Parts: sequence; structure tokens; C-alpha cells
Amino acid sequence: MRPESGLPFDDIRNLIATMPGPDGAAVEAVRLRDALLTKPPGSLGRLERIVEWLAAWQAKPQPSVDRPLVAIFAGNHGVVARGVSAFPPEVTRQMVDNFAAGGAAINQICLTLDLGLKVFDLALDHPTADITIEPAMDEVTCAGTMAFGMEATAGGHDLLCIGEMGIGNTTIAAAICNALFGGTADDWVGPGTGLDEPGLARKRAVVATALTCHADWLGDPLEVLRRLGGREIAAMAGAIVAARHGRIPVVVDGFVATSAAAILHALDASSVDHCLFGHVSAEPGHTRVLAAMDKEPMLDLGMRLGEGTGAALAAGIVRSAATVHRGMATFDQAGVSEADDQSE
Amino acid sequence: MRPESGLPFDDIRNLIATMPGPDGAAVEAVRLRDALLTKPPGSLGRLERIVEWLAAWQAKPQPSVDRPLVAIFAGNHGVVARGVSAFPPEVTRQMVDNFAAGGAAINQICLTLDLGLKVFDLALDHPTADITIEPAMDEVTCAGTMAFGMEATAGGHDLLCIGEMGIGNTTIAAAICNALFGGTADDWVGPGTGLDEPGLARKRAVVATALTCHADWLGDPLEVLRRLGGREIAAMAGAIVAARHGRIPVVVDGFVATSAAAILHALDASSVDHCLFGHVSAEPGHTRVLAAMDKEPMLDLGMRLGEGTGAALAAGIVRSAATVHRGMATFDQAGVSEADDQSE
Repeated sequence: MRPESGLPFDDIRNLIATMPGPDGAAVEAVRLRDALLTKPPGSLGRLERIVEWLAAWQAKPQPSVDRPLVAIFAGNHGVVARGVSAFPPEVTRQMVDNFAAGGAAINQICLTLDLGLKVFDLALDHPTADITIEPAMDEVTCAGTMAFGMEATAGGHDLLCIGEMGIGNTTIAAAICNALFGGTADDWVGPGTGLDEPGLARKRAVVATALTCHADWLGDPLEVLRRLGGREIAAMAGAIVAARHGRIPVVVDGFVATSAAAILHALDASSVDHCLFGHVSAEPGHTRVLAAMDKEPMLDLGMRLGEGTGAALAAGIVRSAATVHRGMATFDQAGVSEADDQSE
Repeated sequence: MRPESGLPFDDIRNLIATMPGPDGAAVEAVRLRDALLTKPPGSLGRLERIVEWLAAWQAKPQPSVDRPLVAIFAGNHGVVARGVSAFPPEVTRQMVDNFAAGGAAINQICLTLDLGLKVFDLALDHPTADITIEPAMDEVTCAGTMAFGMEATAGGHDLLCIGEMGIGNTTIAAAICNALFGGTADDWVGPGTGLDEPGLARKRAVVATALTCHADWLGDPLEVLRRLGGREIAAMAGAIVAARHGRIPVVVDGFVATSAAAILHALDASSVDHCLFGHVSAEPGHTRVLAAMDKEPMLDLGMRLGEGTGAALAAGIVRSAATVHRGMATFDQAGVSEADDQSE
């Protein structure tokens, strides 16, 4: 943890300001090789763009997805006392234990698709403060949690999938998106894990109250993060920043993970260019925030579980794209005739 | 091969008439278990429906995807002499050799996602007849090729992905769809592997001419298949029929593979209920034929390569869905609290 003195957010801002850009030469190398591969030009569609994106952000002319990691960040939220979730708050820790025991959906997907899995438990016994009456965190805690999230990029991974677990955190994501993109609480609040209509009404009221409570300080995206929370969202934002510096492309999961990317996007839209949005979830705010950031999700399977499950499924496709580019034969190697000259 | 005597199409019709239906008890078992798993009800969206679909057609209360196979059917088409493809016809055999050598896109996807791969070479040295002037095949050849395609279901596989290779076969698929679903050649013809505008004009004219040539015999879907071709489409239709009898769910690839399913759908819409449409390709006719059959594709990645590539990517998700259902812990096993009673 960093010392309590100093101005931690300045360090974060500095990391964002010094992010490396895409490697144009690596992208060009991918395009040159792609044109030689035994397939009609353009016929792999989005897979071809994915390989270019991997090359741009790995800064490698032949990108790899040999050591992909799914990182799950878990946090608790004081606002759950307001009745905003269908599940009790102890489920966050119970699910962290379930991840450790291999019993959750994400464990099975990682096994099937050969993805690494790490869980980052963020002070679960210390929920963030109730955002309807006070800021979720102080600046030192927020910046320190972002720094903790940066640890997810250790270990030599070449693709990072970002997911989360936290009872109450679709309320937090809705509040963040409302603060960043405007509209009303109704625009951003959805059923999460399965709220009934009275619960939805409470959740909308909570988001509206939180926005009013913090209204004077929501012009700065890092203040939005600090005031509305939560720890797992701060950690995911930190992981995304560190991944950029570490040349690790990121696959973002659902609504809550996307709200972490949205904080960075609001600071500098190009700061999430190394992020691919793995799926669009059934939580209605997710469609809206992706559209607000002009991002096209890869999958649309009506999922709304979190845990990185949508990002992990997308990672199977990203990995396939990389393997195809690296392993396919060229027309010359395979002795396959190229397209006819159609101008004859 | 079956003898030249007899009425082969009657055998095919009989196989379709005697197809088994879904196993409702297996589906119910899946639903009961799903409700116990450590996730909010419904939160895996389409993955949950996929597991029910697997159970229905495998007739297993705990479905498996342990031995998935990608089957590629390759054929040649006399109509390519009319200038309907960007690539020369020898590419069909060259690509079959490329599959055998491991150099094609589908090889790399199968390696990445641990899928088996078999290629069925359908008399490549004997292209079907030019459909603008005569039927592609006689009835014995067509029914015999369907019977040959049924071999794809041997080997104890529990999921079958259906793909193809055949220079000129988007012309055939367009003609089939035009015959089955109406409209004009313009509605169904697209650029395939990358035709330029004069090529597209030739392709549209070829489809229109073929439809006129065979107009009096297009009321029977099996006659559509025999007259318009081609061998790989007949074989895929046969594979789909045999998979139903063998309790093997099928993932269908792109426009050409879907045209094989469309023949069966036209005979009996329920005959392709055991088929999942893996993706929607960039070939415009694919969107249209899926809509005509009221099928929702799983992926939309702008691919248009064929070879089973879209179906194989979808199979990675189907396999994940099965593994999740089988391997997840229940609330009881994991000690996770269930949803609060929201009626309090």
C-alpha cells in the first residue's frame, strides 16, 4: 500500500497520461501476413480485427494468447443495507470461497477454455460506506485499491479478462454511469441478480439519492469512482491502466466491469483502446454504457452473471483468432491458387 | 453406396418421418439441476437454453460435449464455368489438402478449442452438372451422397459441427434458398469469397437462369437439392438427418451449411430442431435464410470463410455451457446463501 501522504490521484492521472499508444508497425505486420494466408481476404471478419488489436497493444508483430488470465475482483458495498440486491451481502465472500473450491460457473469455463483464474479479495469485511449519505472511500483508499488491482498484471500473462463479484455492485455501476453519462437513475438501473419491482424502485431511489448527495463533485471521474465506489471497480480500473503499461490487452466482462472502464474512458477516451468488450449482458445499463462509449461487444448471449464469464467466453474466440493467424499456412506454403484476376 | 434400383428419396423421406423428438424428461432434469446451481436464476442466459437443447437431443439428463467433431464436406460444381467465383475450381482440392496438412483456419480453431476434425471429400474430380442447363445430380447420386454424409455421425461423437468447402457453392446455396423461400436471385446472391460487381451480375444471372430452367420441379425440397446441388450440400443434409437418429446435436456453420438445413426444414420444419446455428455470416443471404427459418444464430462476427469455422467457435461456447452445468456446485454444496425472500 502507498503512504497516506501525497496526492495519490495525481499518480493515477500521471499513469494515464503516460500510457503507450498502439504499435502501428506490429499492426502492419499482421496485415501483411493476413494477406498471405489461405483464405479469401477479409473472410475471418472480426477475428482479423482482433488479431490487429492484439498486435497493437502487445506490440508484437505475431501476437500470442498463450497465458490468458481471468481476474475476478470481489468487494462489498455499504449500500446493500438499503435493500438493493436480491441476495444477502454474505454471498460475496461465499462466492469467493466457491471460486477457490472450483464450484462456480467461471471455474468451469476456465477449465473448458484453458484460461488461468485468480481472485482478488478486496477487504470484504470492510464494505465501502453507504453512498446515499457519504463517499464510498477516501482518496488514499481509492488510489490504493487501484494500485492493488494493478497486481493482476503480474505473472507474464498476454491477455487479461476482467470480472467481478460483489453483492450490490450493479447499483454502484448504475450510479457511476449516471454520473458519467447523465440521464436519470431509471436509465441505468436494472434487476441485477433478479430484483423484483419493489426492489427495483428502492434501487432507483438509492441511485438518485446518491447522485444528489455527491452532485457537486461529479465533474472529475476519479471523484466519481471514489464517492460512488466500489473497491472492485477501483481495482478493475487500476488493472486496466497497468495492463496498458504492461502491453497486455484486456477483455472486459459485463456492466460492472464496464463501469470501471467507463471511469477511465471519461478521463481519456483513448485510455481504454486496449480493451475489448467481451459481451453485452442482459443488464439493460450495459447496452447503454457500451453505446455511450461507442464500443461494439463481441458476444450477445443474454448473460448477466458477472464473475468474468462473458469475458472468458470471448477470450476463447480471441485465443482462436491469435492461433489462426499464427498457425495458418500461406498460399505459397500450401500450394493453393489465389483469387482469379477478375478484371479479365 | 446404395443400389441403383429402388426409390432412394423414399428412404430419405422415411428417415425424416421417423426422427425422434426431444427428450422432455432430460430437459426437465436439466432445469431442476440448473435451479440449484450457485448463480442467480436465468443469469447464464442463452447458455442455459443450450444445455436444455443438448439434453433434449442427446436424451441425457446431464448432457456432455466430450467428443465434439467438426465435419467438413467438400464438393465441386459445374456451374463455376460460368464465372461465379473469385477463385478457380482447383482450390477446392487444394484446400482439402490444406486441411489434411493442418494449414487452414479450421485446423487452428480445432486445435485451440480441442475439437475433432474430419474432412469428407465428395468426388472432387466429378463436379456436379451445370445447373443452368441440367440437374446437378440424378436421384441415385443425390440420395447416395446423403447416405455418405450420414457416415459423419460414426465415431461416438456427442456434438457435430457441420461445415463445407466448395468453390462456387454460395451460388448453389443462393439458388436453393431462392427455390425454397422465393424472392429473386438478387435477394440471395452475395459476393461469396469476394466477387467484384461484374462477377456478382454473372452470379445473379446464373441463379435466375437455374431457377427458370428447373421451375417446374421445385415444389419438392429433395428435387431442389438434386437439381440445384451440390454434393457437399446433400451430404450435410444427410449428416443432419443421421445425427438426429444418433442423438447427436448439430451446430451448423454458414450460408452453405444452412442451405442444407433449409432443405430439411422445408420438408419438415421440426426436422432441424436439433440444429443450432453457430453464427450469422457476412454473406447477406445467410441473414435472410436464418430469418426465414426463424433461427437465432449464436455469434455474429462478420465471418464468411466456411470450413465450419463459425460453427467451431460456437462449439467452444456450447462445450462451456455443458461443462458449467455439469461441474458447478449447488447452493447446498458450496454453502452459498440463496436469494432473499423479497416479499418481506
